Amino acid sequence: MGSLADAILAGDRRAAGRLISLAESRTSDARDELEILYRHGGHARTIGVTGPPGAGKSTLVDGLIARLRARGLTVAVAAVDPSSPYSRGAVLGDRVRMMRHADDAGVLVRSMATRGALGGLSAATGDAITIFDAMGFDIVIVETVGVGQSEVDIVGHTEAVLLLQTALGGDDVQAIKAGVLEIADIMVVNKKSAPGSDRMARFLRESLHDRPLRPDAWTIPVLLAEASEETGLDEVIDALFGRLDHNRQDTHMSAIRRRQAAAHLTALADVEIRTLMRRLIAGQTRPEAWQAVLERRSGPYSLAARLFEQLR
Amino acid sequence: MGSLADAILAGDRRAAGRLISLAESRTSDARDELEILYRHGGHARTIGVTGPPGAGKSTLVDGLIARLRARGLTVAVAAVDPSSPYSRGAVLGDRVRMMRHADDAGVLVRSMATRGALGGLSAATGDAITIFDAMGFDIVIVETVGVGQSEVDIVGHTEAVLLLQTALGGDDVQAIKAGVLEIADIMVVNKKSAPGSDRMARFLRESLHDRPLRPDAWTIPVLLAEASEETGLDEVIDALFGRLDHNRQDTHMSAIRRRQAAAHLTALADVEIRTLMRRLIAGQTRPEAWQAVLERRSGPYSLAARLFEQLR
Repeated sequence: MGSLADAILAGDRRAAGRLISLAESRTSDARDELEILYRHGGHARTIGVTGPPGAGKSTLVDGLIARLRARGLTVAVAAVDPSSPYSRGAVLGDRVRMMRHADDAGVLVRSMATRGALGGLSAATGDAITIFDAMGFDIVIVETVGVGQSEVDIVGHTEAVLLLQTALGGDDVQAIKAGVLEIADIMVVNKKSAPGSDRMARFLRESLHDRPLRPDAWTIPVLLAEASEETGLDEVIDALFGRLDHNRQDTHMSAIRRRQAAAHLTALADVEIRTLMRRLIAGQTRPEAWQAVLERRSGPYSLAARLFEQLR
Repeated sequence: MGSLADAILAGDRRAAGRLISLAESRTSDARDELEILYRHGGHARTIGVTGPPGAGKSTLVDGLIARLRARGLTVAVAAVDPSSPYSRGAVLGDRVRMMRHADDAGVLVRSMATRGALGGLSAATGDAITIFDAMGFDIVIVETVGVGQSEVDIVGHTEAVLLLQTALGGDDVQAIKAGVLEIADIMVVNKKSAPGSDRMARFLRESLHDRPLRPDAWTIPVLLAEASEETGLDEVIDALFGRLDHNRQDTHMSAIRRRQAAAHLTALADVEIRTLMRRLIAGQTRPEAWQAVLERRSGPYSLAARLFEQLR
């Protein structure tokens, strides 16, 4: 125990990949290694990039990597792509992107397997951040498709959330429904030469204007970009650094650290409860408390409340 | 305490509505009432109806209500519609549907509020079933839009899951991505006069044929219907009763009760952890265990594991 963690702390990339794979099976071994690494972390700055399918997230992230490297910063990317188990999109996308940065020791891109991680993607994201952070990467980017609550959970691990939109396909409505708007720190309308992009940016600015001031007093910038032509990316980088600098203020940092730790603990608790429930369903374990619920001598309401008593 | 529960056990519908509203705020008062009602339940048969937007779920449910009433069964419906907070669709849909059955004491339709229940919809569904079951309804139908993990969680509360599809708009891919296929007991291709419906039914049958036998040895029927013309509904009812009869066998019933109780407990634990985390984020509470994680003296991994120790 601790040997994988030691290798990872020494910068071993293959060990990092092995632990991510191991963590996906959520064994107690992986947990112990991650626990060690977590205690060594807390230094990396974290960026979440989310948005609907086809918004150009991967292209944008690729451009961000190049610019961050130009500033001398090392970058790790966790690409969480909840695509169909029948699709090989994630693996392929990885390779395409890796090619450009493959020989750069300051860049690490990892696609998170979504197969078998149902409900556990947010935990896997926390694991990847824990690992990359412990390895000493300056910036960790989490890229995910923003279409539902689970993706909101995923970017909750990061301290600067960039929401990518386009004027195509009525994506504004989709983002609003998903609650993604609620967690964005920076909004970028990509494919700005597409018709309606200016209107989209205006719509977003007006929507934001109508909302109450955020507790952290952050004003959300709305930018236009054309990631495939590397246009507007400097403004995006400036906005991201503006956000990271803003977070550096003591009062904000403490709130952000609480939010990140909460996202992590929520994700892990979610995995724990689902794993436990699968065992209970399979009849592999039957503690008295659970048996009483099945026989309706007591209810799940008091049992759930009791479970969390120690943290209340 | 217990007064609302007493009224609900006596069949008071307004008390039932009040407790559902109260439960949405997840106060400990509501919890105590629900705990009492839960112990009185376990008799209702539960049916989940899910599928993509526009598949015709509400029309189908309306037809099912009429047919179940014709068999002398009482029916309660919990309509979980996670529509935008800006939309009034759920409320309106309720009224339209209620009109036909408004004077029938054997029917109760309730739309679950989704505003503010983010992440708590599955718990709210469990609450509604607990209440309707305690009131003595023979059948409880849960209707939800099947587009993601949270909807999979929601129909997990029921013992017969009907997945409604149409040949329109590539919904087959959507259902596969959402993992909804994994939990369906009965599949219905609605709007069967639409082009491609037969092909869609064939695609579903072939997909099912390739899968291993289910642990409960249930063969999933694939039916065609035109709910708006009440065509094919008798076959749907027969399939549903086939499923309910199948479940009545002792070995299956025990597995189903375990699954339902697990869905309930998972939903409640999820709400507990999210409520707790919101308080932690807001800095309203700081137990030592949590403080240690924030200061990286320990990690969220050991904390999450400790939380669930007592049920392991």
